[in-house]
Order: sequence, then C-alpha cells, then structure tokens
Amino acid sequence: MRLGYGLIGAGFMGKTHTLGFLNVNRVFRLPVEVELRKVAEYDAAVAERAAKSLGYPEFTGDWRTLIGDPAIHIVSIATPGTTHCEMSLAAIAAGKHVYCEKPLATAAEAEKMTAAGEAAGVKTMVGFNYIKNPMMRVAREIIDSGEIGEVRTFRGMHIEDNLMDADIPWHWRLDKAGAGGAMADIGSHILATARYLLGPIVEVLGDVTTVIPSRPVAGGACQTRAVEVEDIARAFVRFERGCSGVIEANWIAAGRKMQHDFEVSGSKGGIFFSQERFSELDLYLNDDRPGRRGFHKIFAGPEHPPYGDFCIAPGHQLGFNDLKTIEVRDFLRAIAGDTSDQTSFREGWEVQKTVEAIYRSSREHRWVKLQ
Amino acid sequence: MRLGYGLIGAGFMGKTHTLGFLNVNRVFRLPVEVELRKVAEYDAAVAERAAKSLGYPEFTGDWRTLIGDPAIHIVSIATPGTTHCEMSLAAIAAGKHVYCEKPLATAAEAEKMTAAGEAAGVKTMVGFNYIKNPMMRVAREIIDSGEIGEVRTFRGMHIEDNLMDADIPWHWRLDKAGAGGAMADIGSHILATARYLLGPIVEVLGDVTTVIPSRPVAGGACQTRAVEVEDIARAFVRFERGCSGVIEANWIAAGRKMQHDFEVSGSKGGIFFSQERFSELDLYLNDDRPGRRGFHKIFAGPEHPPYGDFCIAPGHQLGFNDLKTIEVRDFLRAIAGDTSDQTSFREGWEVQKTVEAIYRSSREHRWVKLQ
Amino acid sequence: MRLGYGLIGAGFMGKTHTLGFLNVNRVFRLPVEVELRKVAEYDAAVAERAAKSLGYPEFTGDWRTLIGDPAIHIVSIATPGTTHCEMSLAAIAAGKHVYCEKPLATAAEAEKMTAAGEAAGVKTMVGFNYIKNPMMRVAREIIDSGEIGEVRTFRGMHIEDNLMDADIPWHWRLDKAGAGGAMADIGSHILATARYLLGPIVEVLGDVTTVIPSRPVAGGACQTRAVEVEDIARAFVRFERGCSGVIEANWIAAGRKMQHDFEVSGSKGGIFFSQERFSELDLYLNDDRPGRRGFHKIFAGPEHPPYGDFCIAPGHQLGFNDLKTIEVRDFLRAIAGDTSDQTSFREGWEVQKTVEAIYRSSREHRWVKLQ
Amino acid sequence: MRLGYGLIGAGFMGKTHTLGFLNVNRVFRLPVEVELRKVAEYDAAVAERAAKSLGYPEFTGDWRTLIGDPAIHIVSIATPGTTHCEMSLAAIAAGKHVYCEKPLATAAEAEKMTAAGEAAGVKTMVGFNYIKNPMMRVAREIIDSGEIGEVRTFRGMHIEDNLMDADIPWHWRLDKAGAGGAMADIGSHILATARYLLGPIVEVLGDVTTVIPSRPVAGGACQTRAVEVEDIARAFVRFERGCSGVIEANWIAAGRKMQHDFEVSGSKGGIFFSQERFSELDLYLNDDRPGRRGFHKIFAGPEHPPYGDFCIAPGHQLGFNDLKTIEVRDFLRAIAGDTSDQTSFREGWEVQKTVEAIYRSSREHRWVKLQ
Repeated sequence: MRLGYGLIGAGFMGKTHTLGFLNVNRVFRLPVEVELRKVAEYDAAVAERAAKSLGYPEFTGDWRTLIGDPAIHIVSIATPGTTHCEMSLAAIAAGKHVYCEKPLATAAEAEKMTAAGEAAGVKTMVGFNYIKNPMMRVAREIIDSGEIGEVRTFRGMHIEDNLMDADIPWHWRLDKAGAGGAMADIGSHILATARYLLGPIVEVLGDVTTVIPSRPVAGGACQTRAVEVEDIARAFVRFERGCSGVIEANWIAAGRKMQHDFEVSGSKGGIFFSQERFSELDLYLNDDRPGRRGFHKIFAGPEHPPYGDFCIAPGHQLGFNDLKTIEVRDFLRAIAGDTSDQTSFREGWEVQKTVEAIYRSSREHRWVKLQ
Repeated sequence: MRLGYGLIGAGFMGKTHTLGFLNVNRVFRLPVEVELRKVAEYDAAVAERAAKSLGYPEFTGDWRTLIGDPAIHIVSIATPGTTHCEMSLAAIAAGKHVYCEKPLATAAEAEKMTAAGEAAGVKTMVGFNYIKNPMMRVAREIIDSGEIGEVRTFRGMHIEDNLMDADIPWHWRLDKAGAGGAMADIGSHILATARYLLGPIVEVLGDVTTVIPSRPVAGGACQTRAVEVEDIARAFVRFERGCSGVIEANWIAAGRKMQHDFEVSGSKGGIFFSQERFSELDLYLNDDRPGRRGFHKIFAGPEHPPYGDFCIAPGHQLGFNDLKTIEVRDFLRAIAGDTSDQTSFREGWEVQKTVEAIYRSSREHRWVKLQ
Repeated sequence: MRLGYGLIGAGFMGKTHTLGFLNVNRVFRLPVEVELRKVAEYDAAVAERAAKSLGYPEFTGDWRTLIGDPAIHIVSIATPGTTHCEMSLAAIAAGKHVYCEKPLATAAEAEKMTAAGEAAGVKTMVGFNYIKNPMMRVAREIIDSGEIGEVRTFRGMHIEDNLMDADIPWHWRLDKAGAGGAMADIGSHILATARYLLGPIVEVLGDVTTVIPSRPVAGGACQTRAVEVEDIARAFVRFERGCSGVIEANWIAAGRKMQHDFEVSGSKGGIFFSQERFSELDLYLNDDRPGRRGFHKIFAGPEHPPYGDFCIAPGHQLGFNDLKTIEVRDFLRAIAGDTSDQTSFREGWEVQKTVEAIYRSSREHRWVKLQ
Repeated sequence: MRLGYGLIGAGFMGKTHTLGFLNVNRVFRLPVEVELRKVAEYDAAVAERAAKSLGYPEFTGDWRTLIGDPAIHIVSIATPGTTHCEMSLAAIAAGKHVYCEKPLATAAEAEKMTAAGEAAGVKTMVGFNYIKNPMMRVAREIIDSGEIGEVRTFRGMHIEDNLMDADIPWHWRLDKAGAGGAMADIGSHILATARYLLGPIVEVLGDVTTVIPSRPVAGGACQTRAVEVEDIARAFVRFERGCSGVIEANWIAAGRKMQHDFEVSGSKGGIFFSQERFSELDLYLNDDRPGRRGFHKIFAGPEHPPYGDFCIAPGHQLGFNDLKTIEVRDFLRAIAGDTSDQTSFREGWEVQKTVEAIYRSSREHRWVKLQ
C-alpha cells in the first residue's frame, strides 16, 4: 500500500513529522509506504520556503487545498492548538487519516473529532511522542508482568522552564480559548504516560496556579496582555486499578528542560524514569539478593524493541526525532489494520477530559470524578 | 558552663544523641561543656547494658529517677512517640532543658509541651536533624539572598521503603494514638525543611492513604492488627510568602532509602537537593552565561560552615551522626542564650499542626487553613 | 549542486549512512543536494533486499559497478575494515568523493588512501561521528577560548562490553590483517576526540593486552581461532600543546555500553563528558563565586549549534543517527568547498598512526614519537 | 583491657584521630577500651590549646615526653611526613602501639619502621582510611566470591584539586625529602585500595609530571621555591593475580574534591565506586535477566557491616570521621590479637615501594618489577 502524505504547519513539529514520515519506511518494514506530497502553511510564500527546505514537491497557502487533494491520504496537523478541531474535522470529512499534535483540542472539540473520525472509519493519531520510547515500553512490560508486584503509587511530572522568563511575550499557548495552560500543553504528555503505564485515571484533585499574570505583547511598546491559563498545575489522582498518584505540570521551573519524569512503586519493586536521560530506566527489584539490591540502571539497547531498528548496538541512543519515527510507524500500522499501538483521538480526548477535570477540581476545591 | 546530660531511651536515636553530646565539645568551641551522666531504659538490666556500651557512668530503669537527678541539666528523650509528652512535661517541671526526638507528639500534646517549656524558661529542641546539614544552610542562604529570585514553587518529599514489606509486624509507629503515620513520622522532616527554607505554611490540601491495611502481630501466630495510620500522605501547600508547593511522605516506596528531596524554583534560578547525596546541592542560575548554564553541583566543603569544623578539606563528607552533633551544638548554644538556630518544641508543634491539618483536609476533602 | 550517492555495505553502518544522506538536506540548508542512487552488497540478492528496505532505486552485487556509475558522485564505504583500502582507492580513481567508516585502514594503507585522495582532488571523510555532537563543539570552544585556562591534563576512554563474552565467535574485527583490536576499532574514536579537542599527539607509551586468547569459530563445532588483536589498550600520551594524558580502549568491560568519556582539566577549570549522556557537558569554572562552585551540567539546546536544526527546544535530544547526519553535512560542505569541519582520510591516517605507535610502544616497552 | 592513648600532631588528622578514639568504644563492642591521655604539639602553647579544644587532660610541647609516658600505650602520629620515621621508631622503642598517617615515609624509612615494629612485637597501623568504608568491604566480597567472575581489568584514581591554584604557597607536602608528590600523598590511597581489592601489584610502568614548577614562599615577598615532586602521576600496573590496570594520582584537577574512584571489570560483571558518593557501589551482573541488566546502585545499609553499628537504618550515611572510627576499631582489634583487618606499617611500606617503583619507572622509561 503506497499512500500520499501532506503536512499542515511547517514549524518545529512540522519538521519532525516530515522527518518521521521520510525515515519510517527505511527504519522499519511496514505494510504501508508513504510519499511526501504537499505542505501547507498560512501563506503561499511561507509554504514555498517550507516545501523547498523540507523536500515536498508541492505546497499551498490554503490548507483546504491540501485536504482536498485526492493524492493525499494522510494529513499531519502541526499548527497552533485552536486550529486543530476545524482542520481535523475537515480532513476527516475528506476521508483522510489524521495525525494531530497535542494538546489535541478542548474536550468538547476532541469529543467531536473522535466521533467524526470513528464514524468516518479513518485512523487518527495524537502526538504523545514520549510514550513511543522503547524504555517506556519496557516500563509497561515491567508493570504488566508483575515484576514490581502490585502497583501502589505513581509520581509523574512534565516540567520545563521554557516560559520561566516573565519577558517572554504573550502567544498562542497562553490563549484561554485553547485547551489550557501548562497541564494541557505539556502536562498532557505525562497524563498520556500515566495512562499508558497504569490505565485510566478515574478521579482527580487539582491545584492550578498562574504565577506570571501578564506578558508583554510582542512588538507592542510597553503593552501587556493578561495570562488566563495556568503556569503550574498539580493533581492528586486515583487510577481505576486502585493505586493513587500525583501529577505535576509546570513550564516556569528554572533549569528544567524536559523533566518528563515518573516513578512507579509496587509491592515488589519500583521503576524510575527521567526524560532528560531517556535511554535509561531505573528498576528496583526487592527479590534481588540482600546486600546487592539497588536500582538497576537499564540502558537502551537492541533487547528493547524497536531500538534495534535504529542501531544494532547498545549505547548509541535514539533522539527525539526517532521517537517521532516510531510514532509514525504506529500510525501506519494502524492504517494497515494493527491498532495495538495507535494513540488515537479518543486517547487525546481522554487526556483532555482529565486536564479539564483537574481545572474544574481546582476551581471547585473538590475531588472530581471522570466518568 | 559545665552541664550534666542524661538520656532516656538507648535505641538507635539514643545512640546518636550520645555520640552527638560526646563529640560536640571536641568539634566546636562552645560556651557550654557537657558531661554524660546517666542513661534510662524501661528496665534496669537494659539500662545497665546501655550504660556500658554507650559509656554512661550511671543508669536507671526508671526515667523519673533520671529526671529527678540534680546533676543532670539536659535530658534527651529518644523513646517511642506516645511517651514524649509525659516525659517532656516531667523533665520541664524538673527544670531540665529537653531535647526530644520527632515526631514530637500530637498537636494537642505539643501545645502543652511548648507552653510548659516556655513558661519554665528552659530550652527545648526537637530532632529535625536534616536541616542541620551545611548544604541545607547554603540552600537557605541562596533563597534568602535572592540569588534565585522570587520563589515560585516547592516540591518536597520524605520517602523511604522501610515499611514496604507487608510482613513487617505491627509496632508503635503504627499506633493511631501517636502523632500519625508516614507524614508525622518521616514527613515531619520535610515539613521542617520546607519551613526552614521558605517559612510558614498557611494552607494545605491533603490526600492520605493506607495501602497495607493490617500487619502481623509480632510473635502472634497468624494474628494481624489493623493499621490505622497512613502509608502515603501528600499535600498541596501554600506558604505565607505566597508560593505554592507539594509535599509527599511515603514509607512503602520500593528502593528509596532516604529520599528527603526538595526543589525550589524561583524567578532567577532554582535549587535541588537529595538526602541520599546530602553533601551535594544543585544550583541553577539563569544569570550564568548562555550556552554555559546548567545546574552547578556544589560539593560540601569548608566554605559551607560548619563543615570545616569536622574536616578542613572538601570531599571528605559528613555523616548522619555529624548532623546530630550540629544539632546538639545548636541546642547548647540556645542554652547559652543564642537561640538563632534552636529548633524548639514550638517548631515541633507547628510542624505537627501542619501534619494534622493535612489529615483533616484529607478527611474533609477541602483546603484547611493553619491559623 | 545535485549529486548522486551510492552506498557499499548495507549493514548497521550502511543504514546510518543512508539515513544521514536522506535527512541532511531536510535538516540543513546546504549548497549540495544529494540523491540516493544505488547500494552495493557482496551479492546481488542481499543488495536487492537492502535496496528495498533502505529505499535505493538501484542495487548491485558488485561494488565496482557502483563505483563505475557516472551518476554517482559520492560513495560511502561501510564494509569490514580490510576492504577499505582497495575500495577507497578504486573510488578515488573513479573521481568519487569517498566517505569511509573507521577504523580507516592500516597506517600504510591510510597513507596511500590519503595521498590518492589529495592527488585526485576529491573530498574524503572518515566516520568519527562522536566529534559531530554539538556538545563536543562546545567542549572545544571552551578549551579554545581559554575558559578553563591552560590545559594541563586529559583522560579519555572508549570502553564497551560488546566482546565481553568469551563465547562470541571470531569475526573480522579480530583479524590481525586489519587495523588492530580495541584501540583501532573503538579507541580510534577517542583518539579522534582527543585530537579534535587538543590537537596533535606527539608521543605515546602504550600497554596492550589480549585477555581472551581465542574465540569459537562460528558454525565450527568446538573449533576455536586465536585472537591476535588486543582486548585492552592503554596509552600515556603527550600533546603537541604540552599537556599530558591517558587514553584507554577496551571492548570487554562489563556493563559499559558506550563509555566514550573524557575529562580535560585546565588551570582555571575543567570539563567532563560521557557519551552515554551525550546531551550533557559538565563544566567547572574556578571563577564561579566561592561556595557556589561546582560542575555546571550543561544540557544540549538550540544555543549549541547545530542542535537547533533538529529541534528548536532544549531537552528533546539528538540521537546517534543525528550525529551521522551532521557528519554528512560536514562532508557535503567540504565537497562544496568549506573544509573547516571535514574529517578527511588524512585525519584517519593520523589517528591510525597513533594507534600503531601505541602498539609499537607496547611491544618495545618505550615511549614512541609520532613524527 | 584499658589502654592510654596519646596524639602527636593536633591538626586536621589529629582531630579525626581524636574523634575516632573517642567514639570507638561507644560505637563498637571491643576487647580494648581506650582513654584519651595526652596530646603533643611542636610547642607547649599550641599543645595546650589542642588539649583544651580536643579534650585531652594532659599536653606537652615535646613529643618525646608523650612517648616516654608509661600511662600511654597507643600513639597516633599525625604530623608532616618527614617526621614519621623518627617518631615511629622512638615510639616503637618505647613499646607503644603506633598508628601513623599516610604517606608513611620513604620506602627505606618504612622498611626500618616495619622491621622495628615487628621485632618489638607492637602493633602498627597506617591511615588508609578509605578502605575502611563498608562499601569497600562489599566490593572485596564481590570480587573474592567470584560474583563478577575472573577479574580482567582495574582502573583507579585519587584525584583532587587542592593544589590546582598555582598561588598556593610551597609547604611540606612539596618537600622532595618526603615520600613524594601526588602519588605518595594521595595516590597511596588508591594503591592501598587496589591492593585491598585485588592483592599485590608486581610490575609498574609510570609517567610522572610536575605541572606547576614553582610555588610562592609563604610570607616571602615575591620569592618562589621550586617544586620537585610531581603533580600528576600515572601508572600501568600488573597484579600478581594476572590482571592489568591503570592508576592515576593528581592534585591539580579542576573541580575534583575526592575522586578516589575505581572500576573493576570481570568476566561475569563489574563494579564501580566513587568516593564522592561513598555510600554507593555500582554492581553490574551479566547474569541478570536480559533486558533488565544494568549497574545496581547499592546503597549502604545495615546489611553492609559495620554500617549498622553507626545507624540501624539505611540511607543515613556514614561520614569521613566514621571511617576513621572503623580504622581505630581495626587497630584496637589488632592490639587485642585479631589482625585480620590491620593495615600495618608493612602495608604502608608495600604501598610506598609501589610509589617509588612508579617514580623509577618514569625516570628510566621502562617497566619496573616489585620483588
């Protein structure tokens, strides 16, 4: 099966999508082959430059043109969050498979997007790339196999300092019309990880704070604009499987570049992971011999699929763009019928429902159940 | 000034108190000199063995005898928590300076103990030993001096695995008549640290869980006893200074031996500390040159008092018993009139009020204010 | 300029070359554009499978056919080391630019290859990929700018455990007709790094050992073959700039997956690097404020070019295949006339001369000068 | 058995000896009890101050007086190295047990000291304190039990930055009449560790360098004095057991406070240790389950004797002065007849012979055998 691919939004994420679709068929053996066809940007000149630099034969300044192109079967949406719903619905209506970046949309929008995709029978994907890491899969295997016993507790966070500086101008991530602030934008990743590892979250108690109340308007002399989304969001959570946890999102934490970290503790052992060292997974096994116990620092290698598809030797390490390639693989497999690793719009919707439950809980000062 | 010293309770903590009082006058120059006089245990034979092994010239099987001894001016109480109030009140009534281990007592008891000590004009101390670490002092200096700007957020925890194994028998730490479970017993340390670094906590939202509902009774064939205190306690907190935070206590976390860790993030930088590497403090300064920024791993040395009183060269490292010696120093200084580093019963009471507010908050599912 | 590319040898390294050439024009803006044309393997069926999986339109079972193809201007050689000389000379004779994996060849061969390439006016490259890491460039900048003062000492190593198991069969890396053992195969990387950071090595004192004296013959029942190359090689070195150092190569070191580590210490500071965490560089600056000194853990980000060409945000991290893409960039730039980052056959020859001087030194028990 | 103790030299090391002898009978149950009696310094006023601050009832400005005191049975010598031989011989002649700091003396002196001690039947000890760490004992157990198989290679170092600054004045450590420079002063520690773990070193190939050729004379305006001992010393070594290794001593390495680190690699696993985190030992076991292998970070606890004599719970950690207490314990046990952990003058002599063999090897550019 050979399918045409089009990209809407050629910024940072658009580039990584491009590289992922470019490499996926060289790295993996897959039933679907992809061809890069067209890139859309908000204006034709920008699109033309993107086509040239990213290697697309065609471009357009009108994303609807791309969606209407019958030679395109798969569409990536890598634009600001407030556009995701409209574009996704249009793409789905045109029968395309849709791969949309996170945060997917508001829960209300995500519900519509999910319903539309499922009704249309197309495949959808949301970009929770960190769970594509081979070591994340190892973590889930360890949990599922009972190696660390019954899970008792979870601590997860996604923490960065990208908005630490109060002088960073107001921009779309801070728009209250979007899915939310730190918890929606980056916390959605750790919620996706928590769900990937431990299953559904059924109840939350949130605490949400805006620390920097306004930001300068870019280009506006001395003007500022109020920030109505949060900088820090924390939540206590209950998982359906019975264990409790705490989750934190923060985009103003000094010195933290990608603290997508978690610890899962069980009755027989525990695991710890830190995204800044994402080729490593720490595993504690209480069954190790007394006097020799201690966290094993497992280092990614070919024994942790699909690492070996990228490098046959351990120690070489994958990078972020490789995670994206794995994500594209899982999307193509879903298109070919194997949805076992598809992270669909439904998953994006579940995550966003959790985000919004945390917001509601914080506003209403009470535990909020997710139905 | 030469003062006599007596110890009640010659277990683990009693031994560290003994070493602290033994060493303090050799390590530091102080206005008070201490002489080890007497040790009390619950029975005379145990006390005799303790006297011999710890080097006390006298012993008694009746702690009231020790308190009544006019040659003793300072008393350490290192017995199970439910005895702290009675013993402390008796010692205070006898005009002794009292150094009691944590958790001090229930808040109601601690209030009485504080009032009694202050009324009697004796000096009191509670054993929050981790804040005596030179690197903890560096952390507070960094915060107070504004090196990391305005503090925005705190994450603190005290996590161990000492009760991870469900087969560990029921014992006094699990007694609901005591100050509480994980948050009282070990979480009190991180609350003390939080207060030491950032000042009063004024509001909490707690989440408290008992994971292992019953424990075997020691020696009792197949008998179990219900555990009515928590294994895991978490709280969102608000500090008087305005910043928010999250605090976690857990004594069933696989592989964690002393995760008394914290991160403080501010508008200009941040600090991270982990007790398992307590000679280190990580400092991020946003003012460092771009391209060269990164957490500085500060390693304890003579430039971090009172490290130099123990070792004149860096890299040698203090141990736990040295922290205890610093604590004794601060107590002796308080007795001599300099209370600047005294961690008095009032502080123990404040910490326990916070513990109990977390419990109430968790029961009542609402934020609880500390008056 | 649009050039055709052909690959000889489609194993592990061949795949990374393919991905590098595939991605380089999407990641970077370059004066040369490359088109994947043909892959050669030792037989046509293998080549056909490689063409299909790696995405080459053409294939051949005869590498001379590839070299003879006028549509191919750039050739990668990713075959076992004993073939490098013959293939490179043939490719150079055909006017191709040649990118050959390390270890390049014996010093005698490498001399011929260097001379041939320079005489023919083609560009050559040898695959010392680790020096292409942005953090390696930062390290060199720190040294060159004098940030750590006058360099006093170097410690470098490239250590793995890939041959730790004595049951691993004899294979081409163990062939004494090749460039050598651990020092040639993996130590060449740390020699290249040492030279990249500090310039020429002028004298060595070596110590070379074979620990596992024979290996089973693959498929041969109970047959073994003697190993005549070293498992461990160490050398004391003198750099032309005056400082001394020690270098170690070892491919039987338990648990080490990619310990390509170095420390450079100078009169004003020092740097430490470990390949297993290759997004980090530790920097100690003695000019930091007393009490706040400590190794800065610099984390790779857009301020460390060319990181930003892969990801615009810090914390995402490059992987091994990205290093290869940077290497291809530098090769293409050299072809276009900018040889500032070319790691040519001459460099491969210099490294191999150092390898062989270490071997001679070890045999003759004396310091050996490199002219 | 109750013995009197006297200290010569009340500087940094004298203080740690004092604390060790003060604590040893409280921490451990031992057949010998020690009483602090007298301290000697180079003049009476200094000695008086030391007696007061360290808690000795008597003092003297003449060390021979101390040695002549019949109430003193054990003498510590914690003075500059050039005095060790004379003092030790005098103490031995007076029938005292002698505990002398490292570096013990020149090899010629150490030979005399060893012979005198053995002839007199007194017990001697040299202060290689780092091998007293419980984790060091674990390391040796792992090696001796075969847990990591046959040992193949050793890398050890003792590296500091205490003389990094070229402005530090000339002082006794730099006196060529002493035992030597960095290798004798701090490298002796790692040689002792290497021997403790792996047994005798039988051959060395050294490389010794003085980087800072002269130092200012303290108090002398603009005067400098030549440094005739080395700043950096490296050696390749062969152990009697057959494996090879490399050892490095350096006291000018920027940012390193106590890099007393080693790695031992064997046919079935390996261990890594770093003194700056001396409560940890990393252990790699190739027999761990594939996919779960990785260095175990073993954290010191009661299962690693004699940790439990200091603290009954893991995670609390020992400090440098505790290592000294263990050393005193081993000395007292030797005095009582159990010499299994005595690190006698003979061991100090063996280490110094190795130091001097390294120096000779470096001067003569050849491997030097230790007979």
